[in-house]
Amino acid sequence: MQKSIVLALALCAAAAPLLAQEAEPAADAEKPTEPVVIQLPAPDKTGGKPLMQALDARKSTRAFSEKEISMETLSSLLWAGFGVNRDDGRRTAPTARNTQDITIYLLTAKGAFMYDAKANTLVTISKDDARDAAAPQAWAKKAPLMLYFVQPTAGNELFGAMHAGSIYQNISLFNASEGLGDVVVGTMNRDAVAKALGLNETQRIVVGQIVGWPQ
Amino acid sequence: MQKSIVLALALCAAAAPLLAQEAEPAADAEKPTEPVVIQLPAPDKTGGKPLMQALDARKSTRAFSEKEISMETLSSLLWAGFGVNRDDGRRTAPTARNTQDITIYLLTAKGAFMYDAKANTLVTISKDDARDAAAPQAWAKKAPLMLYFVQPTAGNELFGAMHAGSIYQNISLFNASEGLGDVVVGTMNRDAVAKALGLNETQRIVVGQIVGWPQ
Repeated sequence: MQKSIVLALALCAAAAPLLAQEAEPAADAEKPTEPVVIQLPAPDKTGGKPLMQALDARKSTRAFSEKEISMETLSSLLWAGFGVNRDDGRRTAPTARNTQDITIYLLTAKGAFMYDAKANTLVTISKDDARDAAAPQAWAKKAPLMLYFVQPTAGNELFGAMHAGSIYQNISLFNASEGLGDVVVGTMNRDAVAKALGLNETQRIVVGQIVGWPQ
Repeated sequence: MQKSIVLALALCAAAAPLLAQEAEPAADAEKPTEPVVIQLPAPDKTGGKPLMQALDARKSTRAFSEKEISMETLSSLLWAGFGVNRDDGRRTAPTARNTQDITIYLLTAKGAFMYDAKANTLVTISKDDARDAAAPQAWAKKAPLMLYFVQPTAGNELFGAMHAGSIYQNISLFNASEGLGDVVVGTMNRDAVAKALGLNETQRIVVGQIVGWPQ
C-alpha cells in the first residue's frame, strides 16, 4: 500500500516534466515542483533532556504560535515517534508481533505528507493546506503540525490504539524535551482529514496529535 | 474502588495486631507484618539518559536474570510510567478528559501490589508470589516484576488501550535508560492474574509488561 503510493507518486513526478515539455508554453507557468519524496535530515539520536526531566515536563498544550517547525526538528520528532532504531528495521515503539501497523501522516501549511520511517522521507500527498478543514478546534487551526496515526482497518483495533498511544507519547516526550507543545485529539473532521491524506476504506485514523511552539 | 481497597486493607492491618494479642500464643509465630501500605522512596525526576539515547536503546527483552529491582528503581519506574508530575495531580501520560483511568498493578516475589501514584505508595494486596501462575511464558516466570495495566470496564476500551500504550512506553524508555529490559505481553493467565490482583468484574486488564534485568 505505502510502496504503491510512493511508486505512483514517483511515476507522476517522473512523467510531469516530460508532459510539460511536450505541452504548450502555458506549462511554463507551473512553478517548479518540489520533490514528491522529500528526504529528511538525519534525526538526532543522542541529544535531548535527561529522560526523567522530559517526563516531568510532559503536559498537554492547546495554545500555539504559528512559528514553523524546522525540517531538522521534524525529522527528530518523527524518528522519536516511530523511527527505525535498529538495523533489522525495528522501531522506537513496540508493536504486537512487530506488525508496525501504524503510519504517521502529517498536515502542515505546505501540504499533506506520509512519514516513511525506513527511508527517512516524507512522501508528498498534496500541496494544499488542509489544516483549517481538518481541525474543528479554533485553537488548533493554525498549529504548524497536525499528526494522524493511521492503521489498516484489517489490523486489531485495540492493538492499534496501544501502538498509537506509545507513538504519540514518544512524540510528546520529544516535545517536552525540545520546548514544543502538543495535545492528543480524538475529535477531528474525519472526512476532511481522510480526504486530505488520501486515505481509503482500508485505513483507519486511530487518533491525532496537534503540535507547535507554545504561545 | 481504589480508596475502598486501601481502607479495607488499612482496617485489616489495624485489626490484625489486636486479634493477635487476644488469640493464643501461637500468634507470636507470625512474622511481624510489613506495612500494608508501603511508602515508596522519592522518584528521580531529573536524571536518566538523554531522551534520544533512551529512544535509540528502546527494545523488547525476553530473557531476564532473577536479580531484584530496588525500591528506589521501582519508585522511579512507576513514576515514569504514570506518576504525578504536576501540582494539580496530572500525570506523566495523558488520558482522554483527564480520566486517569489506568491503575498499575504489580506482581513480584514479595506479593501483589497496587501503585497509588498520588500517595507514592504500594498498596499490598497479597504477600503470595503469584508470578508462576500469572505468566504462561517460561522465560517470564522468574522475572522480578510483572506489571498489569487495569482499567474500569465502564471506561472506553480504545482509550484505555491508548493510555496503557503510553504508560508502558514511558516504562520501556525508563528501562532503556537504566539498563533494565521489558516486553509488553497480551498473553497471560488472565484468571490467575485477576485473582492474584484481587480484581473484580468491574475491572479489565488491558495489557501486561514483564520487567527485569536482561540476562
